[in-house]
Amino acid sequence: MSSQMQQIVLASRPDGAPGHDNFRLETSDMPTPGAGEILVKVAYMSLDPYMRGRMDDAKSYAAPVPLGGKMEGGSVGHVIASNADGFAEGDAVFGPFGWASHAVADARMCRKLNPDLAPITTALGVLGMPGFTGWYGLNEIGKPKAGETLLVAAATGPVGSMVGQLAKAKGLRAVGVAGGPDKCKLATETFGFDACVDHRAHDNVSGLRDALKEAAPDGIDVYFENVGGPVLEATLPQMNRFGRIPLCGMIAWYNAGGLGDGASSQGLTGPKLWRTLLVNHLTVTGFIIANHWDRYGEFLTEVAPMVADGRVKYEEDITEGLENAPQAFMDMLRGGNTGKTIVKVG
Amino acid sequence: MSSQMQQIVLASRPDGAPGHDNFRLETSDMPTPGAGEILVKVAYMSLDPYMRGRMDDAKSYAAPVPLGGKMEGGSVGHVIASNADGFAEGDAVFGPFGWASHAVADARMCRKLNPDLAPITTALGVLGMPGFTGWYGLNEIGKPKAGETLLVAAATGPVGSMVGQLAKAKGLRAVGVAGGPDKCKLATETFGFDACVDHRAHDNVSGLRDALKEAAPDGIDVYFENVGGPVLEATLPQMNRFGRIPLCGMIAWYNAGGLGDGASSQGLTGPKLWRTLLVNHLTVTGFIIANHWDRYGEFLTEVAPMVADGRVKYEEDITEGLENAPQAFMDMLRGGNTGKTIVKVG
Repeated sequence: MSSQMQQIVLASRPDGAPGHDNFRLETSDMPTPGAGEILVKVAYMSLDPYMRGRMDDAKSYAAPVPLGGKMEGGSVGHVIASNADGFAEGDAVFGPFGWASHAVADARMCRKLNPDLAPITTALGVLGMPGFTGWYGLNEIGKPKAGETLLVAAATGPVGSMVGQLAKAKGLRAVGVAGGPDKCKLATETFGFDACVDHRAHDNVSGLRDALKEAAPDGIDVYFENVGGPVLEATLPQMNRFGRIPLCGMIAWYNAGGLGDGASSQGLTGPKLWRTLLVNHLTVTGFIIANHWDRYGEFLTEVAPMVADGRVKYEEDITEGLENAPQAFMDMLRGGNTGKTIVKVG
Repeated sequence: MSSQMQQIVLASRPDGAPGHDNFRLETSDMPTPGAGEILVKVAYMSLDPYMRGRMDDAKSYAAPVPLGGKMEGGSVGHVIASNADGFAEGDAVFGPFGWASHAVADARMCRKLNPDLAPITTALGVLGMPGFTGWYGLNEIGKPKAGETLLVAAATGPVGSMVGQLAKAKGLRAVGVAGGPDKCKLATETFGFDACVDHRAHDNVSGLRDALKEAAPDGIDVYFENVGGPVLEATLPQMNRFGRIPLCGMIAWYNAGGLGDGASSQGLTGPKLWRTLLVNHLTVTGFIIANHWDRYGEFLTEVAPMVADGRVKYEEDITEGLENAPQAFMDMLRGGNTGKTIVKVG
């Protein structure tokens, strides 16, 4: 076993979009697992939009990453030393190992994986937090009904592609939004969306609105909201009465500097938003998937077989090397990824 | 029967708060009821905040009042000529008679009242649209649970007082917001609110926020939203996780000039609002009570006995004379009324 490990820490808080200066690669001694803990060699780590929020010190649903602290996140890897019952050397595990080559974690926070059932990377995407987010939000809040129209942005991402495929399976018209013709093609040809709007082809809200109108001629009943920004602005007026909006993210605004004054230049004022909800009898429900892990088993039972037999497809975008995680993260926030963003660490 | 009638028409569209110039009192010949219609002499007419929205020509859930058209609204009165089965001269009726001394209406749009059960004015307030709005929004969207805390603004108005009293009856802590010490006293002493915050005593959002914190020390689970503006801004950060917000109005913003640029100076940006919903797992559902008249019978069955035996109290603010309706309406929009605003016409 090597005697040293590497990790990426938060060097400074970003003002707007993160840059390389905000991250620092550090080398430290290999830790030893205490009672009930395991030491894991990370194989793949996840990069997710929510991590941008943790870099700010604004009050949120989770504590911010402290300055100098390890960037947090879920990863998969293999146990190389165990002080916990039920975990043995060589076991494949998912856990909160963060942006690191190795990590010690409380075994109760980790989950053993069966590599024979699915590649372990799926625990980061299609069968992990993003896929579960799509499943939960669509079903519990979106309450989709056959014949309705669903819209989701970041349609080829791990949340959007799950939402679109599940909606199709339930008999809805699924409309996606994605950046660029290649992603739109992936959305319709691989993930089965009925239509996909390329938001890069429309440099203003009204152009986007017209394109959505064409893609969703009967209006939108369920808008699975994970981006905010211009897509939200273009979508709201096209929501049908009694529409539902599961709200799990707003990546377009994550770099807006705390969403305060910097964001008030957006065309969408609070009163305008409120009025649209009122007039169209819309329901918006925000949700943080971390509050719903009690439903995860139900998700796996339903969706894992669909992944196994190809009814639910997934794409992964794998970058090699821990040191390249910051660049991959920045690219992802700009929509440079295609599919679930993963860094191969081991 | 007099041969002439009077009505108030929309003379021009207001820019911000309405003024006398926006209204015109007109005299015209008495109309004759056609087949299926009744002619009614109006006794009392209702003034409600939603009427402000009808004065604009913005797209909304109901068509705007046309320029030169009669101001719309619900009224109660007595049939003086009937061409409709089931309606006879002298019958007390509720219907869409608008701001007028007399009106002809399709009898299918009217409802006979029994003056022995309750004063006919109650059909405009506590047992009419406002009371029904409070009952529906609280129960269907607010989903109140004993031990929780409810907040409602305009606490002594016909919606707010219904919401507060029903919440108390269900075992919630009911906190009101009202303008001035007299209304706050009315809220606690007559309507039984546990506490009432005087928004006029706080000239900024943060002062209001502190006062709400004191009045609702355990946070707010249900915010019955009928005002928008600073009260909403002060309330949002104090919503408990999984809180519910039935949204039926936003009177604080009705004079904001179409809620566009004029309102973007409000501190509450779209992104900020969205983020609060997300982080605190809140559900907002807009509703227009006109879509739910199928539940009205259920409301009356439950609440009419509570009004009859005094468990649900109500206040009426009655102005004399049709010609004084514009002034009473403007006063109401400024919060100058106490209780349900009614104009005695007959």
